[in-house]
Amino acid sequence: MASKQAPAENMLWGGRFTQGLDPLMVKYNTSLPYDKIFWLQDIRGSIAFARANRAAGILTDAEFSAIEKGFEQVAEEWKTGTFVEKENDEDIHTANERRLSELLGKEVGGKLHTGRSRNEQIATDMRLWLRDELRILEGYLSDFVKCAVARAENEIDVIMPGYTHLQKAQPVRWSHWLLSHATAFTSELQRLRETTSRVNRSPLGCGALAGNSFKIDREAMARELGFEGLLYNSMNAVADRDFVLETMQWGSSFMLKISRWAEDLIIYSSLEFGFVRLADTYSTGSSLMPQKKNADSLELLRGKSGRAFGQMAGLFCTIKGLPTTYNKDLQESVEPLLDHIKTIADSMQIATGVLSTLTIHPEKMLAALAPEMLATEFADYLVRKGVPFREGHHISGRVVQLAEQKSIPMDKLTVKQLQGVDERFGEDVQSCLNYERAVELKDAVGGTSKSAVREQIAVLKEILAGK
Amino acid sequence: MASKQAPAENMLWGGRFTQGLDPLMVKYNTSLPYDKIFWLQDIRGSIAFARANRAAGILTDAEFSAIEKGFEQVAEEWKTGTFVEKENDEDIHTANERRLSELLGKEVGGKLHTGRSRNEQIATDMRLWLRDELRILEGYLSDFVKCAVARAENEIDVIMPGYTHLQKAQPVRWSHWLLSHATAFTSELQRLRETTSRVNRSPLGCGALAGNSFKIDREAMARELGFEGLLYNSMNAVADRDFVLETMQWGSSFMLKISRWAEDLIIYSSLEFGFVRLADTYSTGSSLMPQKKNADSLELLRGKSGRAFGQMAGLFCTIKGLPTTYNKDLQESVEPLLDHIKTIADSMQIATGVLSTLTIHPEKMLAALAPEMLATEFADYLVRKGVPFREGHHISGRVVQLAEQKSIPMDKLTVKQLQGVDERFGEDVQSCLNYERAVELKDAVGGTSKSAVREQIAVLKEILAGK
Amino acid sequence: MASKQAPAENMLWGGRFTQGLDPLMVKYNTSLPYDKIFWLQDIRGSIAFARANRAAGILTDAEFSAIEKGFEQVAEEWKTGTFVEKENDEDIHTANERRLSELLGKEVGGKLHTGRSRNEQIATDMRLWLRDELRILEGYLSDFVKCAVARAENEIDVIMPGYTHLQKAQPVRWSHWLLSHATAFTSELQRLRETTSRVNRSPLGCGALAGNSFKIDREAMARELGFEGLLYNSMNAVADRDFVLETMQWGSSFMLKISRWAEDLIIYSSLEFGFVRLADTYSTGSSLMPQKKNADSLELLRGKSGRAFGQMAGLFCTIKGLPTTYNKDLQESVEPLLDHIKTIADSMQIATGVLSTLTIHPEKMLAALAPEMLATEFADYLVRKGVPFREGHHISGRVVQLAEQKSIPMDKLTVKQLQGVDERFGEDVQSCLNYERAVELKDAVGGTSKSAVREQIAVLKEILAGK
Amino acid sequence: MASKQAPAENMLWGGRFTQGLDPLMVKYNTSLPYDKIFWLQDIRGSIAFARANRAAGILTDAEFSAIEKGFEQVAEEWKTGTFVEKENDEDIHTANERRLSELLGKEVGGKLHTGRSRNEQIATDMRLWLRDELRILEGYLSDFVKCAVARAENEIDVIMPGYTHLQKAQPVRWSHWLLSHATAFTSELQRLRETTSRVNRSPLGCGALAGNSFKIDREAMARELGFEGLLYNSMNAVADRDFVLETMQWGSSFMLKISRWAEDLIIYSSLEFGFVRLADTYSTGSSLMPQKKNADSLELLRGKSGRAFGQMAGLFCTIKGLPTTYNKDLQESVEPLLDHIKTIADSMQIATGVLSTLTIHPEKMLAALAPEMLATEFADYLVRKGVPFREGHHISGRVVQLAEQKSIPMDKLTVKQLQGVDERFGEDVQSCLNYERAVELKDAVGGTSKSAVREQIAVLKEILAGK
Repeated sequence: MASKQAPAENMLWGGRFTQGLDPLMVKYNTSLPYDKIFWLQDIRGSIAFARANRAAGILTDAEFSAIEKGFEQVAEEWKTGTFVEKENDEDIHTANERRLSELLGKEVGGKLHTGRSRNEQIATDMRLWLRDELRILEGYLSDFVKCAVARAENEIDVIMPGYTHLQKAQPVRWSHWLLSHATAFTSELQRLRETTSRVNRSPLGCGALAGNSFKIDREAMARELGFEGLLYNSMNAVADRDFVLETMQWGSSFMLKISRWAEDLIIYSSLEFGFVRLADTYSTGSSLMPQKKNADSLELLRGKSGRAFGQMAGLFCTIKGLPTTYNKDLQESVEPLLDHIKTIADSMQIATGVLSTLTIHPEKMLAALAPEMLATEFADYLVRKGVPFREGHHISGRVVQLAEQKSIPMDKLTVKQLQGVDERFGEDVQSCLNYERAVELKDAVGGTSKSAVREQIAVLKEILAGK
Repeated sequence: MASKQAPAENMLWGGRFTQGLDPLMVKYNTSLPYDKIFWLQDIRGSIAFARANRAAGILTDAEFSAIEKGFEQVAEEWKTGTFVEKENDEDIHTANERRLSELLGKEVGGKLHTGRSRNEQIATDMRLWLRDELRILEGYLSDFVKCAVARAENEIDVIMPGYTHLQKAQPVRWSHWLLSHATAFTSELQRLRETTSRVNRSPLGCGALAGNSFKIDREAMARELGFEGLLYNSMNAVADRDFVLETMQWGSSFMLKISRWAEDLIIYSSLEFGFVRLADTYSTGSSLMPQKKNADSLELLRGKSGRAFGQMAGLFCTIKGLPTTYNKDLQESVEPLLDHIKTIADSMQIATGVLSTLTIHPEKMLAALAPEMLATEFADYLVRKGVPFREGHHISGRVVQLAEQKSIPMDKLTVKQLQGVDERFGEDVQSCLNYERAVELKDAVGGTSKSAVREQIAVLKEILAGK
Repeated sequence: MASKQAPAENMLWGGRFTQGLDPLMVKYNTSLPYDKIFWLQDIRGSIAFARANRAAGILTDAEFSAIEKGFEQVAEEWKTGTFVEKENDEDIHTANERRLSELLGKEVGGKLHTGRSRNEQIATDMRLWLRDELRILEGYLSDFVKCAVARAENEIDVIMPGYTHLQKAQPVRWSHWLLSHATAFTSELQRLRETTSRVNRSPLGCGALAGNSFKIDREAMARELGFEGLLYNSMNAVADRDFVLETMQWGSSFMLKISRWAEDLIIYSSLEFGFVRLADTYSTGSSLMPQKKNADSLELLRGKSGRAFGQMAGLFCTIKGLPTTYNKDLQESVEPLLDHIKTIADSMQIATGVLSTLTIHPEKMLAALAPEMLATEFADYLVRKGVPFREGHHISGRVVQLAEQKSIPMDKLTVKQLQGVDERFGEDVQSCLNYERAVELKDAVGGTSKSAVREQIAVLKEILAGK
Repeated sequence: MASKQAPAENMLWGGRFTQGLDPLMVKYNTSLPYDKIFWLQDIRGSIAFARANRAAGILTDAEFSAIEKGFEQVAEEWKTGTFVEKENDEDIHTANERRLSELLGKEVGGKLHTGRSRNEQIATDMRLWLRDELRILEGYLSDFVKCAVARAENEIDVIMPGYTHLQKAQPVRWSHWLLSHATAFTSELQRLRETTSRVNRSPLGCGALAGNSFKIDREAMARELGFEGLLYNSMNAVADRDFVLETMQWGSSFMLKISRWAEDLIIYSSLEFGFVRLADTYSTGSSLMPQKKNADSLELLRGKSGRAFGQMAGLFCTIKGLPTTYNKDLQESVEPLLDHIKTIADSMQIATGVLSTLTIHPEKMLAALAPEMLATEFADYLVRKGVPFREGHHISGRVVQLAEQKSIPMDKLTVKQLQGVDERFGEDVQSCLNYERAVELKDAVGGTSKSAVREQIAVLKEILAGK
C-alpha cells in the first residue's frame, strides 16, 4: 500500500498546500476564460452529435428536439451576454452541458454525452472555428493582393531604382516592386487554401481515443457541420494538434513576408529615400518636427512577425516528444492560436490600409536613378554587336572609370570619348542612356517591361479568381 | 569627398587589419565548400540557358555545341573527383564558368553569362536540387508508412492498453496505434507533394533582379529542366527563399511527429512497460546488464526533431526584415538546407528500419490490460438499457469503488454484487468483461474494431498509391 | 513636390480606407490595455523626475509639491479602480500626464515633461516593474528548492532505481533524484540574481535618444527609485530591450528544467511505474476509473515550457535586424513579457504545490529494483581484488548470462556457481547483492551515499541562504 | 516469453533490414567525426582520472606512469594527424582508450576506466573545451569593444543625425553611436564572464549517474584540470546540458546585437545615406558599377544571427521533456555547439575588421543634419524662459509651420518672424540654430556632449580592464 503522507508531515515542506486546496491550480487548469470563444461551435457540434445519436436510436425524437431547443436558448444566452458561468465550468463543454441540464433536467441532459468525450469535442470545436477564420483570412489576403495589383495597373509608368544589397542596381517599374511582393503573398494564398482543407476535417465520433461504440454516423455529422471529410483514425483524431501547427507555420510564413514588405516601405519612407509617404492614419507625427513621420504601422507589422513566429515555435516545443493521444500539454495550443489568428487578421487589414492610402513620389524615385545603373546597358549594347559578354562587361567598366576620372556623370561622355575606350561604340550608343528603354528591354516573362508587368497582373488575377 | 582614413590612423583601432587583407573574410564569404553539391544542377542550368540563348540568336550553333561539350567534361571532372578548385572560385557558378573558359577560351566561354546573373543561378540550382531530393524523401516516407500498414494488417489481433495522459484508458488494437501514427505521417506525405510543386518552379531567365533583355524563352528552359512552371516576377524569383523555409517547415513538422512516435516506443520498450523490443541494430546494449537495451535510435530520432526545428527557426530569423531582392544574408539558407534534408532522409530510413525489425510482446500488452479499463463498458451497457449516460457513468463508478473496497479485481464481482449497486444489471453484464468485445464495439469509422481498422488500412493504401 | 493622390483615385484600391480613418489602426497601435499595469512605476518615475527637475531649477518647490500631490491622487484612482481612461490615452504615460494636467491645470502639468521623452519612460517603467517581479520570483524559486531539500532530508532512506535512457541502471536514493533537480534549479537561482542586477539599472534622464539638456541628476533619480546603477549611453538606454530578452532566456531555461522534472514525475506516476501519486488537487480523476489519475498539473507545467520558449523566440525575432534606437517594433516586447512572468510565477508555485503534497511509494520503488542493477558491483568487487576493470566487466557479464540461462534471478546464484565463472569470487561476494550497500559505496562528492547526499543538502542550503 | 518475429515474417514490412545490419544506423549514431575535436580534453581528463585513481590506490605508480606516457603518445598522434581511427571507434573516448590499450596492453589499459563512465567523460570534455573557447571569445569581444572605444575617442568631433524609427530625430556625436553599441556589447562581456564561470565546473568523478565507488578525490581532479569548482550532484552532472544552452543563449544574444549594429551600418553605407564606406576587403564590388559596393560582411553578420539563434532554439527543443539523466538525444548538443562557437568567433573577428577599417564621411553626416532637428532646442529655449514645456513645444511647432509656409529652411527665419509667433523669442534665439551647441547641451550622464561621451569611454575602459 501507498505510504500515506500525513498532513502534519507534509507541512515540513509546504505548509501552504496542506489543506489540499490550491486555488491557483484551478486557474492554471481552467480553459473557459479563452475556450468560450468556441461556444457556438460547441453547440453546433453537440446538436450534430445528438442528431446522429437519434438516428442511431440512442435518443428519441422528443429527446433530440428538447436538446436542440435547449441549445437554442443556451446559444441565445451566449449571444446576448447573459450566460452565467459557474464555479465548476472548467471548459466550454462543461459549461454548455451543465446549462443544458439545468434547462432540460438530468434525464434528457444526461443523455447528451452518450459515447462522446471532451477530447473529440475540443478537437471539433477548434477545427470548426479555425476553418471559418481561415476563410475570413482568405478574403483579407485576397483584398491585400488585389490592392497591390490595382496600384500596379494604375501606376505602371513610374520607374524607381531597383536594389540588391540595399545598393542601387537596375531601374525597375514601381509596379514591378508591388508585384514582387504580391507574387509572394499569392503563394501564401495557395498554401492557405491547402491548409484550410486539412483543417476542415472531422474528428467527431472518435470518442476519448478508441472510437464510438454506438454506431454513430460520422459522415452525416461531418456533412452537417460542413467538414470536407473525416479524420480516419480515432487516436490520431483526438490528439492531433498539427493542424494548429500547420496553421501557425502558414501564418508565420505570411508574417515573414510582411516583414520584408514593411522593411522596404520603412526604408523608402525615410527622408533619405523619400519614395513614399504614409497616410496620417498609419503613422505618428510630432508637433515639433512636421517632417518626422514615424511609420508606426509598418514597424508594428514588422515587429509582429516575431510574435507570430514565437507562437508557432512555442507550440512546436510544447508538442515535441509527447506520448500518444491526449495529454493536457495540448491545452497550450488554444490560447496562442486565438492570438495568432487575430494578429494575422489585423495585420492583413492594416497592411491593406497602408498600401491603399500610400502616397508615392515618382519624382523622387526618378531623381534617385543614377546613370551608373545603366552600365549594364553598355555591356549589352556591345553583346548585340557580337562582343562576348565578359569582354563587354570589362569595357563598360572602363567607361564608368573614365567618367569618374573626368568627374562628369557617365551620361555626359561624348561618343568620341566612348570610342576612345572601344571603337565598337557607335552613335547609337546614346540610346543606352535611357531608363525607360532599359526597363522596356527586360521583356522576357517575369521582367520589368510594361508588357511583362501586365502579364504578371493577369496571372495574379487568375489566381485571385480562385485557382 | 570622403575623409580618407590613412592606414596609420586606422592602426589605432585594429593593427591586424590595416593591410587590407583578411583571410578570415574570404572563408566567411566563400560558399563553394558547400554549394559545390549543386555542380550538376549548375551545369544543367547553364546548358539550358545556353540552348535558349542559341535560340535567341545570342550564341551560334557551334558556340552552343562547344559549351555543351565543355560542360560534359566539367561534369566528368566533378563526377570523378578530378575537378581542381582554384583560389578565386568563390562559389559553384564561378568555378564552373572559370573551368569552362579554361577549356573553351574566353571568346566562347565569355558568352555563356550573357544576360544572366548569379542570383538566378543559385536560385535555379537550389530548386532543381531540392526538387529531386524531395522526390526521394517522398519515396522514403511512403516506405515508412507502408511498413506501418503492413504490420497493422499482420498484427491486427494484438490488443494493448490505449493511453491518455500516460494513464491506462481503454483497450485498443496494436494496429490502431500503428495506424494512428501512419495517419499522421500520411498527412505529411500530402503536404510534401504540395511543397514539392511549389519548389519546382523556375527562376531561370530572371537576371539579377529586373529580368532578361535578350528575349530568352523561359518556358523552354523550364521544360528542359523539368520544372512544373515559372516564377512570374523576377524580383521575387531571385530573392525568394521561402521555398526553403516551407521545406523546413514541412521537414520539422515531420520530425515533430517522429518525436511523438519515438517517445511512445521508448516508453513501450522500458522494462516497466515491456511491450516492444528493438532489434540489436537499433539499440545499444551493455555487457554488464543484458536486460539493459538503450533505444539509441529512437532517442536520436526524437532528439533530431530539435535539430530540424532549429534550422527552420534559424532561417526564419535570418530572412526576417530583409529588404527587397537579394542580400548576402540569404546565403545562410544553403548550409542548413543541406543538413536538414540529410537529417530527414536519414531519419526516415532509420525509423523504417526500427519499425520493420521491432519485436512486439503481445502477452505483455495483454497482461497490462486492467479490468478498470472496461468500466466504460458498464456505463455503455446501462445506456443500452435506457439509463442516461451521466447516470450510467455514476453507477459504473460505484462498481469500481465496490471492487476496491472488497479488494478484488473488478472482473471478480458477482452479478449479485453488481445488482446490489444497481438492479438494472442483468446476467448478460458479464459480457462487458471482455477486452476483445470492448475493442470490437468501437466500430464506427475510425474506431479500433477490426473492420474499422481494415477500413483505415484501405484509406492509407489509396493515398500511398498516389492521392 | 509629392504627387498628391486624390481620394477618388485611392478608392480604386481600397475604398474602405479613403476617409483617412482606420479604427483598427488605433487598436493595433494602442498599448494602454496592457501597459497600464505599470501605472505605479510610471508615477514613481514621474515623481522622481520632477524632484530632480526641481533640484535642477526647472520646477519650483511649489510646483513640485503640486505634482507630487497630484500624482498621489492619480495613484489613488488607479488603486481604487476609479481612473477613467479617455479616448486618446494611447499609453500609460499619456494617461497619467493627461490626468495630472486635468487636476493641476496646464501651467504646472505642462512642466512635468520638461526634457523627458516617452522612450525613457517606458524603459524605466518596464525595468522597475520587472525588477520587483524578479525579486518575487526569486522567493518562489527558493521556496521550491527548499521544498525539495526538505524532502531530501526527510526521505533520505528511500531507494529507487536510477535510470539512463529510461532503462534501469543503478540504484540511487530518492533524495538524490530530488537533489539532482534541485541542483539544476539552484543554478537558475544564481542566473536570476545576475539577471536582476542587469535589469535593475536606470535609463531615466536619457531623453528621446540624445540625453538630457537640463542638468538632471540621474544618480539621484536612480537612488530614489532603487536602481543599482545607471545605463551609461542614452541611445542604448532608450532602445535596449535585451534586458527583456535576457529575462526570457532565463525564464525559458527555468521552464526547460521544469519540463524534465515534470516528465520524470509523469512517468513515475504511471501505473506501470507507480513510484509517486499526486495529490488530488494537482490531478484530475475520473468517476469511472478510480485508478486513473491524470497528472494535469505536471502536463501543464511541461507544456508551458513551450509557451515560455515561444515568447523568448518571438522577441528575438522581433528585435533582429532593427536599426538604432527606438522603433515601434519594440512595443512587442511588453505583452509577451507580462505573460512570461505570470507563467513563470504560476508554474513555480504549482510545482512547489505538487512537490510538497506528493505521496511516494517506497515499496514500489524497492520492488522495481532488479538484481541486474548490481552487476556493476560484481565488477567493482573484482577490481578491488586487482582484476582490471575491463576484465571484471566481462566476468560480471558472464554472471548475468549464467543467471539468465538458469532462469533464476542473479541474486539466487550460489557462490559456487559464481566461482564457476571466475575463481576469484569469494564468500564475501554475497555482500554485493545489497542495494543499500551499492548506494552507500557511492560516497565520493556528489554521489548517492547518505553522507554525500547530506553534503549536497548543505551546499544547496548555503546557496539558498544568499549566495 | 517474447514473440520472436522470424526474419521471414519481418520481410513483409522491410526486406532491406532483415539482415540485422543497418550501416546507416552506425553513421547516425557515431559521434567520432565531430567529437574528436575534444581529443586533448579527453586525454587530459583521463590522465587526471588515472592520477586520482593512483592516489586512491586503484592504480600503482608504475601503472599510472605507463598510462600517462601512453597518452602522451596518443596525443602526439592526434597532433601530427597520424592517429588511425578504427571501425568501432564510436566516439573519442572509445578511440582514445582503444589506442591506449594497444600501446600498453589490456592489463594496464583495462584499468583506466575503473569507476568511470563515458557519461562523465563527455560532460568533462565538453566543459573543458568550451571553457577554453569562451576565454578566447572574451578576448575577441574585448578587442571589438576596444576598437569602438578607440574610434569614439578619436572621432569625437564628428556629428551625425540621430534616428528614431529611421527618421531624423536629434543630432548626436558619431562617437555616441559607436558607444551605444559598445555599451550593449559590454553587457554581453559581463554575461560571458558569468557563463564561463558556470561552464567551468567539474562533472568528473560522477560515474554513469550514481557517483564513484572508489573514493576518488574530485577536488584534486578539478584543480588539475583548472575547473573553478565541482558539480555537486552526480545525476545532474552527467546529464545536464544546460551549460550548452546557456552558452548558446549568450551567443545568440550577442549575435542579435551584432544584427542591429550591422543593420545600422548597411543603411549608413547605402548611397542614399552615404555616411560610411566599407574597406574593400569587407565588401564586394562590381566591375560595371564602381559605386556599387555590397556590404557582404555586414549582411553575413546580420544573417548569421539567425544561424546562432536556430542552434539555440534547436537545442532547447531537443532537451525539452527529456527524462532524468543521460539520454542519447543529448548527443545532439555537440555538433551545434561546435558550429555555434565557430560562428561567434568568426563573427567577432569580422566585425572588428569591418569596424577598424571603416571609412567615415563626416561631411555627408553633416549635410544630412536638418534644421528641423533643432526644433526641440526652440522649445527648450522657451522652457528656460519659464514657459511650460508643453506650451513651448506647441510654439516651436508653429515656428516649423511658418518656415514651411514660407518655403524657407527653419534656420533662415528672422528673429522678427519668430517674435511674430511668440514674443518671448529674443535675439539670443539664434544660438539655438547650432548643431554643436545642441549636442553639447546634452551633458547629463549618458548624453551626447563631449564630456558625457568621454565619461562613457572611461566607464567602458574600466569594464574592459576586468570588471
